[in-house]
Amino acid sequence: MKVITIEKVRFSETDMMGVVHHANYLHWMENGRVELLRSLGIYLLDLIDDGILFPIVKVECQYHKPACFGDEIRVETTLCKCTKVKLEFSYEIYKNSENIELLASGESKNVYINDKGVICRLPDKYFAKFQEA
Amino acid sequence: MKVITIEKVRFSETDMMGVVHHANYLHWMENGRVELLRSLGIYLLDLIDDGILFPIVKVECQYHKPACFGDEIRVETTLCKCTKVKLEFSYEIYKNSENIELLASGESKNVYINDKGVICRLPDKYFAKFQEA
Amino acid sequence: MKVITIEKVRFSETDMMGVVHHANYLHWMENGRVELLRSLGIYLLDLIDDGILFPIVKVECQYHKPACFGDEIRVETTLCKCTKVKLEFSYEIYKNSENIELLASGESKNVYINDKGVICRLPDKYFAKFQEA
Amino acid sequence: MKVITIEKVRFSETDMMGVVHHANYLHWMENGRVELLRSLGIYLLDLIDDGILFPIVKVECQYHKPACFGDEIRVETTLCKCTKVKLEFSYEIYKNSENIELLASGESKNVYINDKGVICRLPDKYFAKFQEA
Repeated sequence: MKVITIEKVRFSETDMMGVVHHANYLHWMENGRVELLRSLGIYLLDLIDDGILFPIVKVECQYHKPACFGDEIRVETTLCKCTKVKLEFSYEIYKNSENIELLASGESKNVYINDKGVICRLPDKYFAKFQEA
Repeated sequence: MKVITIEKVRFSETDMMGVVHHANYLHWMENGRVELLRSLGIYLLDLIDDGILFPIVKVECQYHKPACFGDEIRVETTLCKCTKVKLEFSYEIYKNSENIELLASGESKNVYINDKGVICRLPDKYFAKFQEA
Repeated sequence: MKVITIEKVRFSETDMMGVVHHANYLHWMENGRVELLRSLGIYLLDLIDDGILFPIVKVECQYHKPACFGDEIRVETTLCKCTKVKLEFSYEIYKNSENIELLASGESKNVYINDKGVICRLPDKYFAKFQEA
Repeated sequence: MKVITIEKVRFSETDMMGVVHHANYLHWMENGRVELLRSLGIYLLDLIDDGILFPIVKVECQYHKPACFGDEIRVETTLCKCTKVKLEFSYEIYKNSENIELLASGESKNVYINDKGVICRLPDKYFAKFQEA
């Protein structure tokens, strides 16, 4: 299960080294994660309405080459693991030019928590959507 | 009614022009606003608990000189107008060096809305704190 | 001279009021400005290579209705004034839904400065592109 | 070698889950790194003037408990490894309240590159400062 999202580097995403600040890659990874879930019919706003949050508990990113202002970025998000208590994703972040280049790669892990902040199990109506996929 | 807050320019606040990105000044202005309210005994979390939000409806900033990485920034926030339906603040943003320099100046306006998103009047228990000040 | 850009609200652009934080609209306005210049054949990286920067000297935004996570945002950027020393833009920011809604409107002003930070005149090769348009 | 930095959670750092967005912890880690280097007499602007950049090549963060608006955050940054080609730091991020609580922990790795983007060795005048410490 893989989804591709496209980003265009914003001026405000750069820092004084002239490249994209490393924290901004996490926003692109988040967009990829959201789109992958959406493609499965799982909408964050529905989960929130049902009192379920899914905070990040771990994120990791390796930076190979810098992304620059104006670059078109291609994020490949892969759903790696999916149980009723956690979700794991991996990411490959490319520069979309003639010769596609790997800029960064990452991983993240989410858990589900209820509105009291306690880890909980994903309700079946959502989990079924992962199983179908 | 004026409050002073100090910021230290973060690396991540710079952009590829080598100076602080202009949108980040709005974060400093927000910190000033929060601290001024706190100094009056008005806490945003209390307002939120009471179902009152106070979105920004207008913000303006003039940029005179750039703020740079490592600069210490002094924000002077002034409460200009304060009624039961709106709040107006002005801001002067200085570089805190031997010769203090004005970097930017701004203004903002908030209104109060209830949890249905409709403009509402500030409850007396909060408004009294403005009147005391 | 008007250019339309489309944004998708990111999760990271929201704040604890559940809506897009007001400072993030300035990033959308910046994207609009960049695309309008690009559509005229004026590239920021070329200007920077020629030692010309064009800092924002004033920005203003009025917020009418909140943008929310997942909304598709349509930014209409208009070039209002354009001389050899300054650029003025206006912006209308809409929610792109069945009934298009105006969420915010804004204005900005840029000047040109050289690599010593002194205000300068835009070289003819760039100014000609504005005149053609 | 450990340095402590204090942050106050900004409103703009929260997201619609009501807690600090996970990407913002990377900014706090960066501040800790900058202050640790400064405490050794190593200033980023000097390095940049000497044509040396030190991009992040890896970052990792585990999130244990959420940071919330208004929290005072204590970041403990430790210099773990330091050679002429790389720097490794670890971070512990606490909520500074009566009962101090660990909110997150992280690690990062930097390398040195020259102005052509090629990995290089840190000049002795800087490396000596690490050795003294």
